[in-house]
This record gives sequence, structure tokens and C-alpha cells, in this order.
Amino acid sequence: MVKRFRFGRPIETEAVVNEAGILGGRVGASVQDIPGFLKVTAGTGMEEGSTVIYEMGERDAIYGLGENVRGINKRGWLYESNCTDDCIHTESKHSLYAAHNFFLVDGRERFAIFVDAPQKIVFDMGFQERSRLAVKIAPGGFVLYILEGDDLRGIVREFRRMIGKSYLAPKWAFGYGQSRWGYQNEEDIREVVRQHRENGVPLDSVYLDIDYMEQYKDFTVDGERFPEFPAFVKEMRQQGIHLVPIIDAGVKIEEGYPVYEEGLENGYFCKKADGTEFVGGVWPGRVHFPDVLNEKARRWFGLKYQVLLEQGIDGFWNDMNEPALFYAEEYLKEAFGKLADYQKQELNIHSFFAMKEMLLGVSNRPEDYQTFYHDYQGEKICHDQVHNLYGYGMTRAAGEAFDELKPEQRILLFSRASYVGMHRYGGVWMGDNCSWWSHLLMNLQMLPGLNMCGFLYTGADLGGFGEDATEDLLLRWLGLGIFTPLMRNHSAMGTRMQEFYRFGHVDDFRNIIGLRYVFLPYLYSEFMKAAMRDDMMFLPLAFVYPEDEMAAGVEDQLMVGESMMIAPVYRQNARGRYVYLPEEMKLYRMRSGEDWDEEMLPAGHHYVPAELNEVLVFVRPDHVVVLSSGGGCVEKVDTSRLDLLHFVKTEAVYEWYEDDGYQKKVNLEAGITRIVVKSDKSVRAEGARKIECRLV
Amino acid sequence: MVKRFRFGRPIETEAVVNEAGILGGRVGASVQDIPGFLKVTAGTGMEEGSTVIYEMGERDAIYGLGENVRGINKRGWLYESNCTDDCIHTESKHSLYAAHNFFLVDGRERFAIFVDAPQKIVFDMGFQERSRLAVKIAPGGFVLYILEGDDLRGIVREFRRMIGKSYLAPKWAFGYGQSRWGYQNEEDIREVVRQHRENGVPLDSVYLDIDYMEQYKDFTVDGERFPEFPAFVKEMRQQGIHLVPIIDAGVKIEEGYPVYEEGLENGYFCKKADGTEFVGGVWPGRVHFPDVLNEKARRWFGLKYQVLLEQGIDGFWNDMNEPALFYAEEYLKEAFGKLADYQKQELNIHSFFAMKEMLLGVSNRPEDYQTFYHDYQGEKICHDQVHNLYGYGMTRAAGEAFDELKPEQRILLFSRASYVGMHRYGGVWMGDNCSWWSHLLMNLQMLPGLNMCGFLYTGADLGGFGEDATEDLLLRWLGLGIFTPLMRNHSAMGTRMQEFYRFGHVDDFRNIIGLRYVFLPYLYSEFMKAAMRDDMMFLPLAFVYPEDEMAAGVEDQLMVGESMMIAPVYRQNARGRYVYLPEEMKLYRMRSGEDWDEEMLPAGHHYVPAELNEVLVFVRPDHVVVLSSGGGCVEKVDTSRLDLLHFVKTEAVYEWYEDDGYQKKVNLEAGITRIVVKSDKSVRAEGARKIECRLV
Repeated sequence: MVKRFRFGRPIETEAVVNEAGILGGRVGASVQDIPGFLKVTAGTGMEEGSTVIYEMGERDAIYGLGENVRGINKRGWLYESNCTDDCIHTESKHSLYAAHNFFLVDGRERFAIFVDAPQKIVFDMGFQERSRLAVKIAPGGFVLYILEGDDLRGIVREFRRMIGKSYLAPKWAFGYGQSRWGYQNEEDIREVVRQHRENGVPLDSVYLDIDYMEQYKDFTVDGERFPEFPAFVKEMRQQGIHLVPIIDAGVKIEEGYPVYEEGLENGYFCKKADGTEFVGGVWPGRVHFPDVLNEKARRWFGLKYQVLLEQGIDGFWNDMNEPALFYAEEYLKEAFGKLADYQKQELNIHSFFAMKEMLLGVSNRPEDYQTFYHDYQGEKICHDQVHNLYGYGMTRAAGEAFDELKPEQRILLFSRASYVGMHRYGGVWMGDNCSWWSHLLMNLQMLPGLNMCGFLYTGADLGGFGEDATEDLLLRWLGLGIFTPLMRNHSAMGTRMQEFYRFGHVDDFRNIIGLRYVFLPYLYSEFMKAAMRDDMMFLPLAFVYPEDEMAAGVEDQLMVGESMMIAPVYRQNARGRYVYLPEEMKLYRMRSGEDWDEEMLPAGHHYVPAELNEVLVFVRPDHVVVLSSGGGCVEKVDTSRLDLLHFVKTEAVYEWYEDDGYQKKVNLEAGITRIVVKSDKSVRAEGARKIECRLV
Repeated sequence: MVKRFRFGRPIETEAVVNEAGILGGRVGASVQDIPGFLKVTAGTGMEEGSTVIYEMGERDAIYGLGENVRGINKRGWLYESNCTDDCIHTESKHSLYAAHNFFLVDGRERFAIFVDAPQKIVFDMGFQERSRLAVKIAPGGFVLYILEGDDLRGIVREFRRMIGKSYLAPKWAFGYGQSRWGYQNEEDIREVVRQHRENGVPLDSVYLDIDYMEQYKDFTVDGERFPEFPAFVKEMRQQGIHLVPIIDAGVKIEEGYPVYEEGLENGYFCKKADGTEFVGGVWPGRVHFPDVLNEKARRWFGLKYQVLLEQGIDGFWNDMNEPALFYAEEYLKEAFGKLADYQKQELNIHSFFAMKEMLLGVSNRPEDYQTFYHDYQGEKICHDQVHNLYGYGMTRAAGEAFDELKPEQRILLFSRASYVGMHRYGGVWMGDNCSWWSHLLMNLQMLPGLNMCGFLYTGADLGGFGEDATEDLLLRWLGLGIFTPLMRNHSAMGTRMQEFYRFGHVDDFRNIIGLRYVFLPYLYSEFMKAAMRDDMMFLPLAFVYPEDEMAAGVEDQLMVGESMMIAPVYRQNARGRYVYLPEEMKLYRMRSGEDWDEEMLPAGHHYVPAELNEVLVFVRPDHVVVLSSGGGCVEKVDTSRLDLLHFVKTEAVYEWYEDDGYQKKVNLEAGITRIVVKSDKSVRAEGARKIECRLV
């Protein structure tokens, strides 16, 4: 059951698109109607914020908040929805690049809350007091949805029904991608592809970070470094490679640059109170921000992607769209002025740190976000009131344009910043992480929360973006990454190079990355079913075994789709790990598609060895996992013959979905083949495809 | 067996003080004499560095490097010896505040290396290539010690014999201490003490961070905030509280301030090439650094502590002695000049980050450490050649002065920066950590390495120094901290207050902190035995169970002394943890000195529940752990009656050491009482003390 309560005059976010079945209708409910277990202090004016309070039981767990720091169970920390470009994701952070205001409480009561409001929100999940949950919404209206139900997964499905179907990525985007901020030209990219092909390591895409552009100008390609871009795109496609360029939020201020000139002429950029364009500083230097919340400006910006589609590009990643602000031009002048004052003083404990703080505070400064405006739904709205919608708007621009320009074909699209609702237009990657073992674990822990908010096409920068990776870290991280829809190795300029061939053990990489292609039939099927059925692909154990108290505490294992559980190793020098099995499972310790051990494990606690070249997969009772025999890229994966990992006590029925991977229009049921395996080892496959299945 | 190889003209560090039994003598050995398994490329001139290379076996583990990041097994990362004031101890750091150039290789061969050299050293422990260990020593001479033996613990004892006996802290310093950068005056401190006493939470010391000083001037006390300091010290002592002031490395430049004027007059500060005093910026603003490497200056600086000893102080912590350098005055001018240039440009990807890097790079800038000199052993030596000796020199200054001023009495002394050899003069705390769960684990992981280098009196800032602590983090961290000799809750100005009474569950804190005093007889005994016998108090499991391959991989449990193993919980929301037992042990799940469960656990893997108010202690077979019945401060702990945690299959013999806790002169054997417990539950105690023992 979903109830809606509207406070004040909320800004429409278009997060919720399906109103059917929601109690409360369009008319605002009052505080008195809120269920007894919640207390709401609503200050809906612009001066005071509102607070939703809940007293938690000693054992209550909290799930959700999408992309954020800390564990699967969010209890005990303070989180914020405040999209921020901050690449140091330590435990003390409160927010990453996204605003995903949905969470479930699982304990004395079982319910979920979605706070639909684009302004800043603070979620105190038992930080100030261990038993108190307090959601503090910054001044402004908001809509509070309360979802009640007996079943965590069912509540999520209800929420997903409200917010609309998830974005579908093309199948090739489930292949392995290699990326680095630093590939400078055609030759650099050819070398990446050559290394993969020659070493027999599969690859489907190479990403183009900001260096491909001319002076970091959106929708341009540097003519010196890519003299014949369309021909180069074609050359790559012939080798089975998709090139995926980055698009940034800020548009460079440069006379003669058409995007700048058109935007200026049509008034499509965000403006200050005085009506002049706001000037921020990002990669290209001085930029304007397109007003992607304004319908006309959004369409204009979205159609610009056509420039690259026309050159053969079929995938994009949208970046810097929190929007990141290295500096606001006006404040930078002020800061330089203050520096002159500091220069005259003796710098001690007070002045030195004040100066340092001022300098570091020049970037992403909240006060600067208050100085420009959007023309949104006919109103002039200050950016800080809709800050969390910016990345959503930018990605929606592209998504809507693709629907117009490529009505049939799926285009790869994912974003750094996001808000609930953006999941209909694209996926997200988890932003600029670091080459830290703790971020491998955080990668895993973010997956279920993202899935809850409809972000199914997602993954982290494998090996870590910032800082120096080690070979073992990359191998272990790939051991998780082979299961995430977006599987991309990405790293930052200035860090150690981290393509597989920078390290010594090519065989290990070939085998681990190869496993991705072996699991592809299962992963793609589970992704598509989750998308079409408003379901999750990655689940905390508590969602599948709600009565198992031990399962509720597991923070480093996930259920992946219907049939299996994963338990990656995420510690340096570890040669195995502890695993909790809520029920009997069959362990496959996989070294490649042809080489593995298997072992039956009873329910309970286990220490399971796993060397650097091994990946642990646990198959549930009466379930099978469909495998291919691999391939060098997605299109070469043959799904007419499937191998089945199996643990069948009575009967396993697997609904295997498959399609051509390019069509936007999907008929799920029509694409399903039912694979039935009985305990007598008989296998039957019926439905969409005629396939050959083999128990292995 | 220890062999010494001298390369070039090493700078004497006085790390090694006992030459007996070392092969190689005072005459330099040549590269040809190095054991075959090591390759040494020695460039001993000032232009080229030297490298020691070892090819590791697939399973070799590396232990040591003292205070540094990452796991107990140091394999797989790049470490540096380069004392640095950097408070963000993430996984990507290579160095903390100390230079502890000792490590053991345990695998195909078993040996240790100590590189005695005060310049920067890089330890590549399989970072660049998984199988290659490479120690890169910056230009300059060095002494390489190679220690071989069958037994890891025996090799450590041999090393410790070479470097001399560890510092002994007074017994009161084994009590709980409360600290915060921010206690402003007498009233603040009285409130801390009152809260502990009124709530029945034990406390032995309150630390005075920089705020007690007058304008951050060493050896001053602010007269407004502490109008009658000696009387206040006395008042606190009457309540069982020791006040422990901080001393910083830099001396404020201020006319009329005697320390500054004396230092200047006698030429005791570090000077630039032109003979004028080097000016750095730290807390007080502009400072000079006392040349603590110069014997005369060191004695002068050390005797200054007398000012506080005379006022009743009997403990100190030495800080900022890497030395931390917020800025060098000369370079700051240059930086401001460069800023003016940046101000004229459009700031883009290149210029903006270059500017930011320049500004952040003003602090602890390597080039600035090259601009001043020490008058060391009759030579003018550039600071960067002896950088890692500075904290050692400062702490030695105090330690030598205490020997002169207080020849009988132990004075508490610990330092932030350190080098091997400093362990004879004081302990170390682990520096400015953060309120991160990962730092709780890192606290545990650093203990054995510090012990190897003789740093027995040590501990981390419990609850975390920087960032905001949560109640559960503090409780869990105290659950480890009750076992570390230095047990101090410390936090930084601007972070959430983290005295126990800022949180809700007073009973939990009373019981957990109370456990420290319950374990005191055992901990003090184990500390003193480790100190007098050149042994470790905290050991990786591999040191006690060398044949157990699984034990070698355990990164989150430690042996504490002879009888017990600890396994703290270090994850938010965890209600237990996995524990590996190399042999059968008896688990005591302790809630207080009166309330616990016990359980016999067979060797192997276990999941062990542990709630927030519980601490896990594992007693080894045929061992006992001596407990007191607690007390509000160390002097109130009654050791005439001991309770014994016990797991006796045949016979347990425990050598219990006890003394008055104040005398510098220690006769270990004379202080030992032998407690013998037999399987028939008979208990006998013979030796130094007449005590009553009770099996519990």
C-alpha cells in the first residue's frame, strides 16, 4: 500500500510517473494522516525545513539510499542527498554524486519512505541517537510516500512500478570496457584493442574521456588527434569495439563555437538574478551551464548528441553533471582578494587554516549554487532548490533525443549524477572511486540500493579511478565486476596504468574477464527480467531470506538474480574468505569457463578458499545458471548452446530471456525460454528459442 | 645470526646500541658478502640511491615496517620511510609519521632486514611486480643488517637486543585517558573528570592539547585559562588524575619569550645555508626548529621540560615533530607571487589544478626540508638527510633530561614521529587517525610492527581523532583499546564531541572501560616482561603458530602476551564476527569484570556473536589470565587478590610480574610471582608477592 502526503508546494520532479493505486491523490494530505509510527514536523515555508522522525527498534535495519557510502545496512550514519563532485569516498562522507531518497525500514515495522524533493535532504539513520531515524528536508515543499508491505522485495517492486520502467542498455554494453582518462589519440586506442585481441582477452568497448574533444568542448572531436573520426569509429566497429565518448555538463564560452553561440542566442543557459549568464569554471575553463530543466533547452542540448551519433557513435557517458563547479567566476575574484589580505598577515593556527579552507572551498561552493537560476515549468527557480535534478535533466536530454533520433535502437547512456526518475533514461556508474580495497566492497554494497531506485545498468570503475592500483586488487575487483551490468576498467590520468597488460599475469586476466562472457546469458537475462518486472537484480540476503537473522547481517555477499549468490574476496593477500549460506548451496569455484571445482555446502558458516584467479559462485537449491562458452566480444557469444551450472534436488525451472540486444521495444514473455531440469538430470527447454542445454 | 653491511658513509643514528654478536664489525663489508638471496645495487654517492632486491616465493609474507598503513602482512604495497604530518590515512598512503625500517620475510627463507639510514627509503613489497621485493634507499650511506633464524619471534628478539631496551611507562599511564583538542581551561577539564567520577567510569589522565599554552609557546601555560596551574595539577592529582601536556617541535619567534631568546643566543635552532635561522610556520605562526640532533641544543631543549615537571606534571606527549611544516616562510612568499600570476589567467583543467596543487603543496614541502641544516656530530648536515631522526631527537631530548632531572621516577612520554632507537626514550601514539571503522582495524594491524621495533607503549586515538565518531564506533574501538598500553580517547576540534557522556549508553561505557582495569594486572605484567625480555606483547598469529598456514592469513586477530588472543569487532552494525582458532581455546565473552559467558571452542573457524557491550577474549590451552576486580583509577586497583580466567588441561604456569609502577630501575625476576594452576583446579602462587588467587 502506498500513501502520498504532500507538504507545501513541492517542485515537480517527475520521479513518480505512475499514480495508479497511490492513496492521497493529488490533493495534499495533512500531518494528521501520517501513520502513527512516524512523526512529521513540517515547515513548508522557505525559512524552516521539515523533519520526519521514526523511533527504531534495537534490531531494525535500513536498506536503500542508492549510491552512498557505508554498508548495505545504512543504520548508524548520517547521509545526505546533495549531488557532489567529490572523489575521496571515505567513511566520513555523507553523500556521493547522487540523490536517491528511498529507503526501507525492516524490523518492528516493515515500510519504505520516498521523499520526493529536489533540495538537500539529510538522513540521520541513528547517528545522533542510535534509536532515532530523522529525515531533515531543507526548506521547500516535498512529497512523502509511505510504502507498506510484508515483503521487502514486494515493497521495492511497488516503488518501481510508481517510478516507471528502467533504462535498457544495448547488449554489447554488457561486454567488457576499457577506459582511461589519458588516451590521447587513435593510436592509444588502437594499442588498447590490439593488446586485448592479441592476448585473447575479450573486449567490447573503449571509452573516450575528455581528451578526445577539442579543448574540452562538448560535441566536438579534436581533429589533430582523431583526423578521420567516422572512419576510426568504423575501423573499431569492424574489430568488434564500440567507442563511448564522454559528454560534460558545462559548455565552453568561446566565440565561434556553435553550441555556445546557439545556447546564448536562445537563452538556454542558466542565468544569474540579473539575467546575465552564470559563469562557472570546469575543464575547459569558463563555461555556461545549459538549463537542462527547461524543456526547450533540454531538447536543444539533447539533439546535439546527433553530431556524434552521425559519426557512428552508439554510446555515451554524461559527466560533471552534479554540476561540478571548480569555481564560480565571481567568487574566484573575491577569493583572490581575500588572499591578498592573508598575504599581509602572519599565518598561524587561525589564519593559515582559514586561508586553506577558503581556497579549497572555492569548488562546489553551496553559496555559488544559490546564484543562478533555471527556467523550470514556467518559473524562475534558484538552482539550489533543484540542484539534485541537474544530472537527471542532462541525461533525460540525451535519452529523449535518442527516442526521437533513434526510436528503434538502444543507445548506451549512463551518468554520474542522478535522481530517482533518471533511471528511465540511463544508467549510472558509481563515480570517481579510488584504487582501494574498501571501494571494492563499497561497490558491492551500493548495488542493491541502486537497484531499488531502478538503476539496473550500473557498475563501478573496476580497479579504481584515482590512486594506484595493484594487480591483485584489479583481479579481485574484476571478480566482482564480471557480474555488474556495466563492467568497465577505468582510471585517472596520473595514476598507475591499469589495463590488464600492464601487469604480469595475463592468463589470470584472460580467464577472469572471460568468465564475464561465460555468464553473459544469465546476466543479461536477469537484467532484462529485473527491468521489465520492476525487480532487483542484486539483492541483500535479507531480501531473499527474511526470516534468517544471520542473513540480515551479511554485508559482503549478494544474491544475483534468481539462481545464485556471489561472495567476492576484497582483502589484500587473502586466499579465501568467510561465507554465510542461509541454505544449502552448491559452490562453483571457477577459474574459467572450462576449469572449476564444485562442492556441496550445507547451510551455515564456511571458510572458502579462493585464490587470485578464482571466482566463487553459489547456486541455490533447485536452480540453474545458464552459461555460454564465452567469446571475444558480446556478438561472438553463442547462445544456441548453453551449459548449465545446476543444483537440482527436485526440479529447477529457469526462465531464460534472450533477444537481439538492440531493439528498444521488448516483449519479455515472448523472449523467454523455459529451461526445466529434473533431479534425474533430464533437461527440457521450451519457448522462444530452440537451444541445446548441457548440464556441467 | 646478524650480519652487518655498511655502504658508503652512513650517518650514525644510534639505533643500534648493542654490537655484540653482530658479524661484520665496524669495518664496511662489500656487496660480495651479502647472502646470495639478496641483490644489492649500491650507489653510495650523493647522486644515486641504492637498492636491495629479493625475489619472493608465491606464499611469502612480510611482517614489520612498524607504524604504517595496510595489513599485518605488508606484501603487495609500496611503503615509505618519510615521517610526514598527514592525517588522512587512506589505503593509498605510503607512509605515516614514523620511519621503522625493519621487516621480516617469512616463506622460502626466514630472515629480517633492518636498513639503518635516516634518509627517505622506499619499500616496494611486491607493488610493481608481485614477486619482487625492492628496498630503495635515497642517496647517502646506509647500514644493512640481515638477521637470520628459524623463528620469527626469535629474530625479533635478536633485533631488539641490538637496539636496546624499550621505554617503560609509569603504571598510571596504563589507565584510561581522556583527551580532546579543544579543552580550553580548568573548568573544561574539571567537567571531564566530574563526568567520569559521577558516572563511575574509570579515568587516570586528562591530556592537555595545544590550548593550554600561551599562544602555543612551548613550556608556557596560559595564565588566564589556568590561573593557578600548580594548584590545579595538585587538585587533579587528589582526584587521581594526571594531566599530560603536549609539547610541539617549533619554538615561536617572539621577543621576550625566553625559549626563543636563549635558543637564538646560543645558536640552538636549525639554520639555512646562509647561517640565519630557518623560519617555518606551525600553530603559533612563525617558528624556529630547535636542533635536537645537536647534543648541546638537545640537552638545552630537554631541560626546558623542567618548567612543567616543577609544576607537578609527570607526563608529556611530543607532537608536530616530523617536523610538521605548514609552510616555510620563504616559499610562502614565492607561492603568493605565483598566485598573482594565476589570477591573471583563465583557470582551466591545467591551470586550476596546478594552482590547487601548488597551494596544497605549501605544507611539508620536500624542497623546504632541503633548505635548513643541523649541526650533527660536528658536521653541518642538510635536514633532508636526517629528516627521519627529528622526532627521535626531540623525544630523546626529553628522555635524557628526565634521566637527569628525575633519575628514579618514570615519566610518561610518547611522540608522534619516531625512528628505531627512539623506543628507548618514549612510546608513540599512532598519530592523527580518523573516526573510521577501517582505522580501528588499522590500529590492530599496526601493533605487532610497532612492537617489533621496540615501541611497546603505544595505542591509537580511540574513537578517532578527525571526523565524527558514532557511539557504536567508540564502543567497539574501546573494545580493542582496553588492551593497548596507551588507552586514550582523543578527538580534534571541530569534530563531534566524543567523551563517553556525549552518548546515550553510559552503562556500556562503564563496563567496557572498566574491563581495562580488570585486565590491568595481566596487561602490565605482559608489557613489563616484553620490555625487559626484548619481546613482543602483540603478536600476529603466525608468530605463535608458524606451521599453521591459515593462521598466517589472519589479519584481524592478535595474540596478546602469553595467554590470550583477541578478536575485536570492527564493522558497523555487526553483531559478531568470524574468528580463526589455530588450536582449541576457551572463549570468554565479557560484558564486565563480573558478567561474562564462557565457551570451549575447538580449533578451526567460528562465527562468534558479540554485541556492542561485549568483548571477546580467547584463552589458550594451559594458560591463565590474571584479573583484578577493577577500580576507578590505576592506584585503586587491588592486586593482592587476583581472579584467573583459565583453560587448564594439564598445568598452567603464569609468571605474573608486578611492581610499584614508578621506579625506573626494574628487576624483572624479583618482581615475578609464579602462579601454577593444575587440572584438578588447585592454584599455587609463589614468588615476589603473597597473593590470593581465585579461578573464575
